[in-house]
Amino acid sequence: MADYTKMWTDLGLNLDNHDALLANLGGAYQSIFMTQENRPAGMGYFDFVMSEAHGLRIQELREEQEAGRKIIGSFCVFVPEEIVLAAGCTSVGLCSGADFAQEEVEKVLPRNTCSLIKSFFGFSLGKVCPYMEVSDLIVGENTCDGKKKAFETFKEMVPNFYQMDMPQNKAPMGRKLLTHEYKAFLAKLEEMTGKKISKKDLQEGIAIVNAKRAALSRLAILRAADPCPISGLDALLINQIAFLDNPARFTEKLNALCDELDVLVKEKKGAIAEKAPRVIISGCPMAIPNWKVPAVIEAAGAVIVGEESCIGERGQRNATDDSAETLDGLIDAVVDRYFKIDCAVFTPNQERVEHIKEMTKNYNADGVIHYGLQFCQPYIMESFSVEKTLEKDGISVLRLETDYSQEDMGQLSTRVEAFVEIIK
Amino acid sequence: MADYTKMWTDLGLNLDNHDALLANLGGAYQSIFMTQENRPAGMGYFDFVMSEAHGLRIQELREEQEAGRKIIGSFCVFVPEEIVLAAGCTSVGLCSGADFAQEEVEKVLPRNTCSLIKSFFGFSLGKVCPYMEVSDLIVGENTCDGKKKAFETFKEMVPNFYQMDMPQNKAPMGRKLLTHEYKAFLAKLEEMTGKKISKKDLQEGIAIVNAKRAALSRLAILRAADPCPISGLDALLINQIAFLDNPARFTEKLNALCDELDVLVKEKKGAIAEKAPRVIISGCPMAIPNWKVPAVIEAAGAVIVGEESCIGERGQRNATDDSAETLDGLIDAVVDRYFKIDCAVFTPNQERVEHIKEMTKNYNADGVIHYGLQFCQPYIMESFSVEKTLEKDGISVLRLETDYSQEDMGQLSTRVEAFVEIIK
Repeated sequence: MADYTKMWTDLGLNLDNHDALLANLGGAYQSIFMTQENRPAGMGYFDFVMSEAHGLRIQELREEQEAGRKIIGSFCVFVPEEIVLAAGCTSVGLCSGADFAQEEVEKVLPRNTCSLIKSFFGFSLGKVCPYMEVSDLIVGENTCDGKKKAFETFKEMVPNFYQMDMPQNKAPMGRKLLTHEYKAFLAKLEEMTGKKISKKDLQEGIAIVNAKRAALSRLAILRAADPCPISGLDALLINQIAFLDNPARFTEKLNALCDELDVLVKEKKGAIAEKAPRVIISGCPMAIPNWKVPAVIEAAGAVIVGEESCIGERGQRNATDDSAETLDGLIDAVVDRYFKIDCAVFTPNQERVEHIKEMTKNYNADGVIHYGLQFCQPYIMESFSVEKTLEKDGISVLRLETDYSQEDMGQLSTRVEAFVEIIK
Repeated sequence: MADYTKMWTDLGLNLDNHDALLANLGGAYQSIFMTQENRPAGMGYFDFVMSEAHGLRIQELREEQEAGRKIIGSFCVFVPEEIVLAAGCTSVGLCSGADFAQEEVEKVLPRNTCSLIKSFFGFSLGKVCPYMEVSDLIVGENTCDGKKKAFETFKEMVPNFYQMDMPQNKAPMGRKLLTHEYKAFLAKLEEMTGKKISKKDLQEGIAIVNAKRAALSRLAILRAADPCPISGLDALLINQIAFLDNPARFTEKLNALCDELDVLVKEKKGAIAEKAPRVIISGCPMAIPNWKVPAVIEAAGAVIVGEESCIGERGQRNATDDSAETLDGLIDAVVDRYFKIDCAVFTPNQERVEHIKEMTKNYNADGVIHYGLQFCQPYIMESFSVEKTLEKDGISVLRLETDYSQEDMGQLSTRVEAFVEIIK
């Protein structure tokens, strides 16, 4: 492995903290991912990307910066990558999947804040996220109360912060607001880059992102097979890497993996044994390295066949229509595509439970595990009606509420094992 | 006391539950309010209103209904009473200040939900809130995530539910949204009443509400005196009753009380001893019968000289301009007035801390106690920056986080007593 010490120092990372984080992350990756049997050969690329997530990928981003590209960091699938690419910029998801510097974090945020928010504060305060440090602009969005209010403090910590407002419902005024915010974001990127975005630019951005989403969707459908050709952990990893990697290369490598999975499915070769109980996981997003609950589920002998999550199908379904004749028409198409995202911050959000049902059916799942981050009010509130509606349809549901700590591992395992026993 | 059993039965109240609630409430009122010394004579009226809050006042509302008026129940100061009155309707605040039927509530809501939301679910599930049962329309608003998402379940419990969307910031698009929502609300009331609202109707509604707010503001200013002519508990009670009572009568009685207070101030007669440590309470609203923290504060020998709260100055400051020539102009003036409310759901919300500073100065306060309901993310998140900003200005702050239970009374008393000791 190359020595990135100089690059990390230049970025202003705290090397001691960062070494500790990488050691921890590497250990978790080894024990969770590398101990899996029957992994498709194509996972080699994604293992490599993970091993170089703080190394080679950051070096690439810095080379892009030297060539004049701006790096746009974000926390949410509502920040439209099509527009980022159209502006000649690169989109990256920011670190928010592990506890770090929690003692410092609780000096500026309430203890009763969800792990995801505490996490990105910790990564920033601890100076351990190279994606955050390399970003030219960090985009926050008014989705949940937690993020919306935490950003007031966060933007004092990161000077290059940009806040995007969000609608709370899918009424026409909500759509108008999202359109307004996407146009303002586009204008902000134009101002940063000094470059006017053309219709062709946005069409190219849309094409890249559509291709990435098509590959992710191809992967999703392949998991309908029994035996499942890929573990849920590996599929989640791919969905996580979708936020970090160069999109065109990612698409190419994912399609190559899918070619391999096509063969495995035809030959009835599984990464997980045939007839393993099949689970859809639904709820809050799981950012790298938040693999805790999926690891528990698959250790219990089940296979996760779909993620109804922003890092998963909720964030990736629906292509953007690229047929409009004008730039404004294309922006409208981008808004159309994002306005369909059934995030729990919207009210009502009935489409979401319909999508969960659809995924359960399409991927031949035996049950749904609802993953709620403690203190995430939108998803935890919604989990009550999701459970009620699914169980009315005869779909078994287990509602979990957890955080990023390892303290509840025993309790989680017991509950998940009991659930897997019920659905098998 | 008259026998209201028939009325309560007609309203569908659960009489056993309701008796238990009234006994509890009556006991709390006696021990908290009636044991206070040197109360102004004018408090007699408000004591009477409280004693008849579930009796005579409900009978009046039913008589209004029989005469054709609609009763509009709400949970938030963003539901504009001016428009309700203009439509020939009556506005009432709904019960949300005490725990009730919590075991039932936790079957439909997460345990980690703020007490205020759990409370109105409990009052509804337990069938103990006559205001809820008498309302022709119950208006919820998309302020915080907690309410926004809880309303999805609540509206299945109450068929006459109406939801109002809310902006998340004070940008022009936010103002457009609020205008749109107020116009939609006005149209909804017109549809319910079958009556077109005229410019004159709205002017009359504005006049009634402005007079009420002017009286509340008169009361607020009188509390600047030392000794304070009225306890914080009594002043809070008056602010709470402002949401239940007939507005014109309330205004008259409050002005009469203020006349009495004028004399007391001149004569340097206090409800609380001179030189008592003076406190501003700031944060989450306190609905009847949520008197827990104010009772602890005044039992510790301090006097509360202002409530920076929706049930208090935040909800009541600013008159609505009635000078517009058209109905649309008046609606705009209503929007202008409400758009100034510095609720923590907005981001940024810098005005709020400025208002706290202003109140501290205007009412000669020695310190600020920030009252956060546990799991209320907007106010608890904001309390960190409020504390930081105020302490930078040399204003002492105590941040409390509590719920409606009595379990933390000991701990609260200890902390409040220590704070009072510091500021005196």
